[in-house]
Amino acid sequence: MKILCPKSELLKSINSVSKAVSAKTTMPILGCILIHTRENRILMTANDSELGIETEVTGSIDELGSIAIEAKLFSEIIRRLPDAIVQISADESNMVQILCEKSKFSVPGRNPEEFSHMPEVEKSLFLKISALTLKSIIAQTIFSAAESSGNIIMSGELFEQENGRLRIASLDGHRISIRNVELKEQYEPVSAIIPAKTLNELSKILPDSSDCEVTVYFTVNLILFEFESTKVVSRLIEGKYFNLDSMLMHQFEMKITVNKKDFAASLDRAMLLVRESDRKPLVLDITDDTMEISMRSAYGEMLEDIPVEKTGKDMKIGFNPKFLSDAIRVIDDENIDIYMIRPNAPCFIKNAQESYIYMILPVNFNV
Amino acid sequence: MKILCPKSELLKSINSVSKAVSAKTTMPILGCILIHTRENRILMTANDSELGIETEVTGSIDELGSIAIEAKLFSEIIRRLPDAIVQISADESNMVQILCEKSKFSVPGRNPEEFSHMPEVEKSLFLKISALTLKSIIAQTIFSAAESSGNIIMSGELFEQENGRLRIASLDGHRISIRNVELKEQYEPVSAIIPAKTLNELSKILPDSSDCEVTVYFTVNLILFEFESTKVVSRLIEGKYFNLDSMLMHQFEMKITVNKKDFAASLDRAMLLVRESDRKPLVLDITDDTMEISMRSAYGEMLEDIPVEKTGKDMKIGFNPKFLSDAIRVIDDENIDIYMIRPNAPCFIKNAQESYIYMILPVNFNV
Repeated sequence: MKILCPKSELLKSINSVSKAVSAKTTMPILGCILIHTRENRILMTANDSELGIETEVTGSIDELGSIAIEAKLFSEIIRRLPDAIVQISADESNMVQILCEKSKFSVPGRNPEEFSHMPEVEKSLFLKISALTLKSIIAQTIFSAAESSGNIIMSGELFEQENGRLRIASLDGHRISIRNVELKEQYEPVSAIIPAKTLNELSKILPDSSDCEVTVYFTVNLILFEFESTKVVSRLIEGKYFNLDSMLMHQFEMKITVNKKDFAASLDRAMLLVRESDRKPLVLDITDDTMEISMRSAYGEMLEDIPVEKTGKDMKIGFNPKFLSDAIRVIDDENIDIYMIRPNAPCFIKNAQESYIYMILPVNFNV
Repeated sequence: MKILCPKSELLKSINSVSKAVSAKTTMPILGCILIHTRENRILMTANDSELGIETEVTGSIDELGSIAIEAKLFSEIIRRLPDAIVQISADESNMVQILCEKSKFSVPGRNPEEFSHMPEVEKSLFLKISALTLKSIIAQTIFSAAESSGNIIMSGELFEQENGRLRIASLDGHRISIRNVELKEQYEPVSAIIPAKTLNELSKILPDSSDCEVTVYFTVNLILFEFESTKVVSRLIEGKYFNLDSMLMHQFEMKITVNKKDFAASLDRAMLLVRESDRKPLVLDITDDTMEISMRSAYGEMLEDIPVEKTGKDMKIGFNPKFLSDAIRVIDDENIDIYMIRPNAPCFIKNAQESYIYMILPVNFNV
């Protein structure tokens, strides 16, 4: 194999596919990037068996072929080369030569035959969404996917589309985060549970652009995100997602409207008094026009008042302040509406059109 | 005690004194900042017994007194308060109240009597230097102070002043870094060995300004840096520094001039092939007009050519590339001069007026 690519293009592609390189693995090939040529195109692929990313590199091919190369060293060499054309070649013994201006590297590669290619995804069920929107709704929901949980389904996010409306949701047993998006077109209904890890890595390489469109293909076991010259394939989590609608049905007893920035700043301060060893609840004491926010732990006390607009009865209710903060900081509205039922029932932070719904369970507090 | 200070002023002072707070200590008082009033001034002090920092806080005093407060929590509370006036008060039971707009914190403080004040430094021997220059020459030499060494003197930097010329130097047994500065005035001769840790913390709080003048006071055991409203006191390292002049005397056999940026970039690339487990030398093969730079380790090979201007004989010599890189990246000149003697004798990177001298010992290499 012998290819010639601008350094900047190589670097861009390496940054994308690196997200699917196993950081810690006992199998060296999983720590590699595959460079290969196909139909006069130069491709880079990484595949850690759960997640695979493939991207096309702009450049020219002098000699067809393929080589696997340790991702970290390859990335660091390319990063430190002058901003010029880089020639990458591999011989039959899998030695890789990297040439750029007066600099020449020879590093041992690995047999490309060892590399397991990305699975082919059947392209029948799909939907289209802008990269910017997809990136946003992932960031706005992913924090409540359970990092490690006995229930594998909680480690994923629901993607559900019907009548051109996409709902994405995650939950961890204490809270639910939901975003609803109206898509531009109608598609066949789909529903899938995507590993949170996949979405995390995907959102790192999605361009911040509403011009870039992502096509998402669904099969029974796999999901494929296609955008620009990049493909991201991931396995899906098997099983049936929780019945969200039944969890969201409630008769609200009161509603408050509060300035988002002020409330978020209060929560930030309250969390200073929460430590691993002393997880005390935040107490909201809501009366007419005012919400008193208090926190009392072994590390000290905090007490603040925030003005609110209230309809309905008074309420005193306790929360894990981090759960409130996680939800609030991803809401872009100036003021937010919080709906409550009673001190031992969930609260809901949502807007009128329900483009977002955050449900948070309260915690007990000692009066 | 009751004081009123703008949040921004508190934060600035906390950032300064925090550098002398012990991060890990079994004595809680060493993790505290002392706030105290003296002669109508508000002072903050931290003192980890090796290094003490005291700074004045702009604000007004409602009630004289003092309190010690855990630095980390205090810093985080102040950081998260609104940008307004903060009232800090302490009662006889050492409870601290922090009020800012509608926010109120109560946190337990510590008895200020427990706090060990900074030692008084006699102000007879001294010199003056601009903050910017002092900060620069510290950064340009400190990397070769030995982090942990059997020889305590190597963990410090020499400050030596005679006839208005300040020389600062550090060495670690493999290399020596020296900067010489002409001061604006003449002072009594002084010589002291300052712990590298002190200089590290000092340079973090020195302003990046040539208008700010630092007065440095020397006693037998202590050094005091005074600038703006801040005092930094440190113990000195006892003992006699190495005889630098004898180490610097050499008859050079050749000299090369090389572009600093190109050489630094080559060294950066070569270091990619050096890992903890495989410390191979960088080999410089210098012939007329060209320096061939090569590196060969278990991780691969690198080979580059750099144009040089040479006077004297050819030379092939090996180095730890990090030592060359550390010295070169703190030199601001476009081209640098490197002087050599023979493959088993030190090389010197220095300019004509010797405002900087970096001596580096070579390492063996297999031809």
